[in-house]
Amino acid sequence: MNDTQAGAPTRAGIPEHGRLPKYFVVKTRLEELLGELGEGVPLPTERELAARFGVARETVRQALRELLIQGRLRRRGRATVVAGPKLEQPLSLASYTEGVRRQGRVPGRNLTSLDRIAADEVLAGQLGIATGGTVWHMERVLLADEERVGLESTYVAVARVPRLDEDFDPDSSFYAYLRERVGVEFGDADERIETVLATPREALLIGTPPALPMLLLHRYSRDTQGAPLERVRSLYRGDRFSFTTHLSRT
Amino acid sequence: MNDTQAGAPTRAGIPEHGRLPKYFVVKTRLEELLGELGEGVPLPTERELAARFGVARETVRQALRELLIQGRLRRRGRATVVAGPKLEQPLSLASYTEGVRRQGRVPGRNLTSLDRIAADEVLAGQLGIATGGTVWHMERVLLADEERVGLESTYVAVARVPRLDEDFDPDSSFYAYLRERVGVEFGDADERIETVLATPREALLIGTPPALPMLLLHRYSRDTQGAPLERVRSLYRGDRFSFTTHLSRT
Repeated sequence: MNDTQAGAPTRAGIPEHGRLPKYFVVKTRLEELLGELGEGVPLPTERELAARFGVARETVRQALRELLIQGRLRRRGRATVVAGPKLEQPLSLASYTEGVRRQGRVPGRNLTSLDRIAADEVLAGQLGIATGGTVWHMERVLLADEERVGLESTYVAVARVPRLDEDFDPDSSFYAYLRERVGVEFGDADERIETVLATPREALLIGTPPALPMLLLHRYSRDTQGAPLERVRSLYRGDRFSFTTHLSRT
Repeated sequence: MNDTQAGAPTRAGIPEHGRLPKYFVVKTRLEELLGELGEGVPLPTERELAARFGVARETVRQALRELLIQGRLRRRGRATVVAGPKLEQPLSLASYTEGVRRQGRVPGRNLTSLDRIAADEVLAGQLGIATGGTVWHMERVLLADEERVGLESTYVAVARVPRLDEDFDPDSSFYAYLRERVGVEFGDADERIETVLATPREALLIGTPPALPMLLLHRYSRDTQGAPLERVRSLYRGDRFSFTTHLSRT
C-alpha cells in the first residue's frame, strides 16, 4: 500500500491551516513523477527539476533528501534512480537468510568481527550464564543481492558453540549451523522493534548516509528446552526494509 | 537494553578508520550525562554544554538534535529534559487502548475527522466491498497521559457499522465498540511495520518536529468468519514507541 492509494488522506501532508512547505509540494510532485518513470529509471538533474517546478535547487535538494531517506529513490553510482518497493521481512523465528530467499533475493553476509568478550551483568542474565562468562560477539553485514542492507550482532555463550570460530561459515545461516552442526533447535524468542539513527560506524559499515533512520530489532531467543540461547541485535536500513507479521487470537 | 550495555560494541560509533565526528563524541558524552541526571531532569543550556565539552554551540546543537530524534531527550515547555524509556506496545490484536493501559499509562484519542468516502479499487479490495462502496474514514490522534504520541486512520465499510457517527464515542476503543455494540469479533490480521517521515500535516497533528522518524503500522484485519473487517494505518512517534512480539515455532 503506498501513499498514493488509500493512505493518501492522511499522507497528503496538507496542514489544516493550509501553510504547505514549498519543498513538500515539490516532493509530492516528484512522487508522481517517480510513479511515471518506474523502478530503476534515473531522475532528471536537480537543475532540470528546479526549472520544471520553478523553485530553487535547494528546495529540490530538500525534497530529494526526504525521498532518499524514505527509500523512494536510490543512489546508483553518481546517478539517483527510482527505488523498488521495500523488502518485506517476516517477523518469525526464520533466519534472515530464509526471509530474504523467500523474496527471491540472494542473501549474503560479510563478517566484520568475531570476538570472545566477557559478559557484563545484563548480557550474562540474557544468556543465562555467570557474569564475566565468555561470549561470542559475531558482527556481520547483511546483504541482499550484493547490496548492504543491515548489520547483525549475535551474542551467544562460547560454552554453547565452542568451535564457532573453526567450523562455522560466517556467510551462512547461524540458525542452520545450530540446527545441523550443534543440534540445538530454537524454541521461542522475544523481539522488540524500534527506529533508531545509524551511528557513524554503522553508516560506514552499511554504506548509508549518516543519521539515516534504521529499524532495530532486539531478539532474545531460547532453545526448545526454554534455556536462553542468543541475543541478537539486527539493524536494517529503514529505506529498504519493512517487517510483516500475522496476528491471530490466542 | 540501552546502548550503554551489551549493544555498545556495535553502537559505540567508532568508525574503523577512526575518524569520529566531533558532534558524535559530544553525543556520546551527553548520553553518559543523561544517565547521571535521570528522567525528567532539565539539561544545562547549550552555552554551558559547549563550554563543558570545549566545542562550538552548533556542535552541541547537532548532538542534541539526534538525542531528541531518538527520544533520549524531550522538550518540556522551553526546557529540554531527560526522556523516559520508549513505550513498548505489543504487536497483537489488542487495541491501542489496551496496550497503553497495560503499561500503566492513560490512553486517549482525539477525533480529527470522521468522513464517508468512496472506496477506490485498492481499498475496496482490502475491505471486500465493491469499488465505489461507502467507507468510514476515521482519523484520531493517539494520546498517552495527555501526550500526543500517534495518529490512527481507520477504514471500515459503512455497511459494517452504519451508525458509527451516532453511537460511537471517538475517545473510546473501536474494538470494544465492535465487540459490544456491533457484535463483531476480530479473527486475525496481517500487519506491516516500517519507518517513515512525518508529513507536515502529521507533524502538526501529533506536535512533533517535521521529518521526525515515525513507526508506521498497516493493519488488514478480518472477523472470526474470515471476512475483511478494517484497514488501519497507525503512525507512532519513533522517539516514544517500540513494538514487541513473542515468536514461537509454528
